[in-house]
Amino acid sequence: MLGLMQDRPLLISSLLAYAETYHGATPIVSRDSDGSIFRYDYTSLGVRARKLANVLLSLGVKPGDRVATLAWNTHRHLELYFAASGIGAILHTVNPRLFTDQITYILNHAEDSLLFFDLSFTGLVEDIAGQLPKGIKAIALASAATTPAGKNIAFHSYEALLEGASDQFDWPHLDETSASSLCYTSGTTGNPKGVLYSHRSTVLHAWLACMKDGFALSIQDSVMLVVPLFHVNAWGIPYAAAMCGAKLVLPGHAPDGKVIYELMAREGCNFSLGVPTIWLNFFKYIDETPSLTLSDIKLDRVVIGGSAAPRSVIERFHATFGAFVIQAWGMSETSPVSTVGTLLPKHKGLPLEKIVDIQVKQGRAMFGVELKIVDDDHKELPKDGTVSGHLLVRGPWVTAGYFKGEGGKVLDAEGWFSTGDVATIDSDGYVQLTDRSKDIIKSGGEWISSIDLENCAVGCPGVQEAAVIGVAHPKWQERPLLLIIPKPGVTLTRDTVLAYLSGKIPKWWTPDDVLFVAELPHTATGKLLKMKLRQQFGQHLITKGGLVD
Amino acid sequence: MLGLMQDRPLLISSLLAYAETYHGATPIVSRDSDGSIFRYDYTSLGVRARKLANVLLSLGVKPGDRVATLAWNTHRHLELYFAASGIGAILHTVNPRLFTDQITYILNHAEDSLLFFDLSFTGLVEDIAGQLPKGIKAIALASAATTPAGKNIAFHSYEALLEGASDQFDWPHLDETSASSLCYTSGTTGNPKGVLYSHRSTVLHAWLACMKDGFALSIQDSVMLVVPLFHVNAWGIPYAAAMCGAKLVLPGHAPDGKVIYELMAREGCNFSLGVPTIWLNFFKYIDETPSLTLSDIKLDRVVIGGSAAPRSVIERFHATFGAFVIQAWGMSETSPVSTVGTLLPKHKGLPLEKIVDIQVKQGRAMFGVELKIVDDDHKELPKDGTVSGHLLVRGPWVTAGYFKGEGGKVLDAEGWFSTGDVATIDSDGYVQLTDRSKDIIKSGGEWISSIDLENCAVGCPGVQEAAVIGVAHPKWQERPLLLIIPKPGVTLTRDTVLAYLSGKIPKWWTPDDVLFVAELPHTATGKLLKMKLRQQFGQHLITKGGLVD
Repeated sequence: MLGLMQDRPLLISSLLAYAETYHGATPIVSRDSDGSIFRYDYTSLGVRARKLANVLLSLGVKPGDRVATLAWNTHRHLELYFAASGIGAILHTVNPRLFTDQITYILNHAEDSLLFFDLSFTGLVEDIAGQLPKGIKAIALASAATTPAGKNIAFHSYEALLEGASDQFDWPHLDETSASSLCYTSGTTGNPKGVLYSHRSTVLHAWLACMKDGFALSIQDSVMLVVPLFHVNAWGIPYAAAMCGAKLVLPGHAPDGKVIYELMAREGCNFSLGVPTIWLNFFKYIDETPSLTLSDIKLDRVVIGGSAAPRSVIERFHATFGAFVIQAWGMSETSPVSTVGTLLPKHKGLPLEKIVDIQVKQGRAMFGVELKIVDDDHKELPKDGTVSGHLLVRGPWVTAGYFKGEGGKVLDAEGWFSTGDVATIDSDGYVQLTDRSKDIIKSGGEWISSIDLENCAVGCPGVQEAAVIGVAHPKWQERPLLLIIPKPGVTLTRDTVLAYLSGKIPKWWTPDDVLFVAELPHTATGKLLKMKLRQQFGQHLITKGGLVD
Repeated sequence: MLGLMQDRPLLISSLLAYAETYHGATPIVSRDSDGSIFRYDYTSLGVRARKLANVLLSLGVKPGDRVATLAWNTHRHLELYFAASGIGAILHTVNPRLFTDQITYILNHAEDSLLFFDLSFTGLVEDIAGQLPKGIKAIALASAATTPAGKNIAFHSYEALLEGASDQFDWPHLDETSASSLCYTSGTTGNPKGVLYSHRSTVLHAWLACMKDGFALSIQDSVMLVVPLFHVNAWGIPYAAAMCGAKLVLPGHAPDGKVIYELMAREGCNFSLGVPTIWLNFFKYIDETPSLTLSDIKLDRVVIGGSAAPRSVIERFHATFGAFVIQAWGMSETSPVSTVGTLLPKHKGLPLEKIVDIQVKQGRAMFGVELKIVDDDHKELPKDGTVSGHLLVRGPWVTAGYFKGEGGKVLDAEGWFSTGDVATIDSDGYVQLTDRSKDIIKSGGEWISSIDLENCAVGCPGVQEAAVIGVAHPKWQERPLLLIIPKPGVTLTRDTVLAYLSGKIPKWWTPDDVLFVAELPHTATGKLLKMKLRQQFGQHLITKGGLVD
């Protein structure tokens, strides 16, 4: 027997309609490419999103069509979030930091019909004009006056198009499982693959951010949105902010520590989100600028994701602003938020050091997300905080497969998606990542965490960066090899480093050798390219001889 | 094009599974009928809910079958919440405060196959045994030792059934729109009608309670659940508590001020929910018991719903506990929460009196709930805080129709449900109820709010209770008549009362007559039975003669 509740779909356009009705006057602040500040509110966002909806239709966009963006965090990009998905098209945010051939691959794979771009990408769009999908139209996110004519391709002006459009538009009633947006993952192997979100997954995920035990996003918040709109839907914050009416501050073109600091101070931002690198630059700016009045910054919560938040950054936020770092874990395939590092009642009153011990973990699964760890034979492992296994995830905002079927079947028989991460889960549910599945070192049937070893090695004085890979060993199958970039002017030896590690790691984890290198290979998004290191050094112990037994 | 997210349904059993995994050790405290305290946790709730699932199946319950309860707020009732819905049956909570003939009507209309009852309802069940649905089985929520044999009907013991059951059970994968629970509304006219909730509506509604700007329910909370489990699913708190891991304190059999106070103090409750009467009794107990150490009470938030929260109660919570009253509005047909009375950033720093001015309103719609007010011709009225109209509501946790089609079609062409309330909505979205549609007084084409008049009249010294109805008038169509129960020993006159009202209400609202009565008729749930008053006094002005022009 079915319930007798109203059949109202969960739609992205409903988020905007709600924001217009209930938070119309809440400010949205956007920094344009030229550094100027644009201010408006949810009412005006609604008006311009409806104009944009009419523009998209007039440009021939049909339901299900992909609409690409190469753009920073600005109000125009935000308008595309609501207008493109709102009409039933699919917003396709392209990461401009990818290699050019990846960008052209992605645009063609998605068969985008429109490409909206910030002026800073004019040269890029002109350069790849010949490799773009047939018939694609390019629209500069700029006024008519500042939009160039375009070489190899004609450019439209976003503002000129909007100016001519009506603001009357009724958002269509879509099936809530309709596709709403598309992000390509930048894997370390093969071509990027597209994750196709739905209105339903997007709205459910937004509730998570508004939960008291999630990000506690609220109408009381002024949000500095550092995480890019091209990075997994900016972790869902544009939708969640509309849901609760939070003030949004969009820092525009590649914001540095100074831009972020000044906007935060001026706009009273108390909440922010970004990857660790952002915060390292933010504190670098603060340290280099003693004239700042730090009490101008009202931060109380900062979400760090993308990669593990360094302990030092967590401590720094406590010390400098009394702000709490919420570590969150997820991936493009999980919309992205799966776990959130908030505290439990039993943690109340713990000394700061113990609190930070919890904050450095990746947090606990929110309702809706199911997690488990399994061994190589797919057997579930205990959640005891010690045993690590392949991390699997399931839930209504987790991918069921990639766009156009790339990568084939990605779920097991029970619907679990394998994250490619290796993790422990403790009895309270806190996840701690220890490795990527393909990077784990299997020594004599036991696992050694390359991440743990790296984190330990970078603590050694004189170490700039460290990478650990498993290399072939005739007896133990694999043994760890440590690669180190020394800090400029420092001389390090194998013995100094191993002496430093001694006592800090299990004895049998001790790397069989330490190599000093001038550089380490990275992906476009800054991840270590370990595959390349394994190609280069995988036979090191065998060819070198003198194996440690 | 559809998104490629996992097709995972939103199910009540998933809430329980999540609570077991992530909040297993969080306490649930339950006061039994004999006043003894039972303590366990979400892990044990899960174990007993699975045993109960096996019991329900062994008693022949099939998906879609209705399982009735006549029960207070105890852990056993909570177990039924998860087990009955979890197996795909429908939990039917019967309000034991209804008249006996309403209860038998409801049980037969629902065709309940099982009836679970607390021992305090033994006599009631025995009395109505002959009028129960054919083949119904009655199960006492008690141990084997305390379960009576039963007169006219055989009683099973809940604990004896559970003892023999396995705790191994896999919750079935249901369609999320499957019916999960059933509550009958106690209207003032006609037979009660059943509202049939779904798993989907229940889970979405639970998110609302966990939102920072909703009830901000959290794992940090210890919840005194005063609102009965038979009252619209206890406002959804059992589900929301499982979603976030809040501690639940269930005060059992008809708790009075003393029971609530003592449990709150002992269990560190910081959050509670209940109708206004509960709080009047709570403060009465406090006033009569000067020996109490009020600092034992850790309340910080109290949700008041069911009927308008009196200003004095809101102020008292501020003054005595520094606790914030969140007024919420809704009805059985809206799951129930539709609006929540939290504050906006612009209210920060306002003096307490102005804050209370906002708290006495019924709050703002949460995302998912659409509200509008319309005139008698169904034309939408402005949200200006002044114009009042019929309040309509729409959303995924709003009813689309009553069980078995009673009452016919209840939605208009655009899917709006008419709440039967008359309200204003201000520019910030705050709703303020002014009347029930059927109680509004239409005088010369203008509306007079009976509720506003009553609220004003009860402020007159010597007035115990007041009721205002519209009575027939040859010129104005209707005019207000004020009925008053004077306080014991007080003599009031028409002129004293009208003099008191003068200046506090628009002049043309002045009642055409004032009558003094010894009692006023109420429904089983304490609402004024104005229909009866209109039958009795509807022709008062005409028969009395001497009409005011």
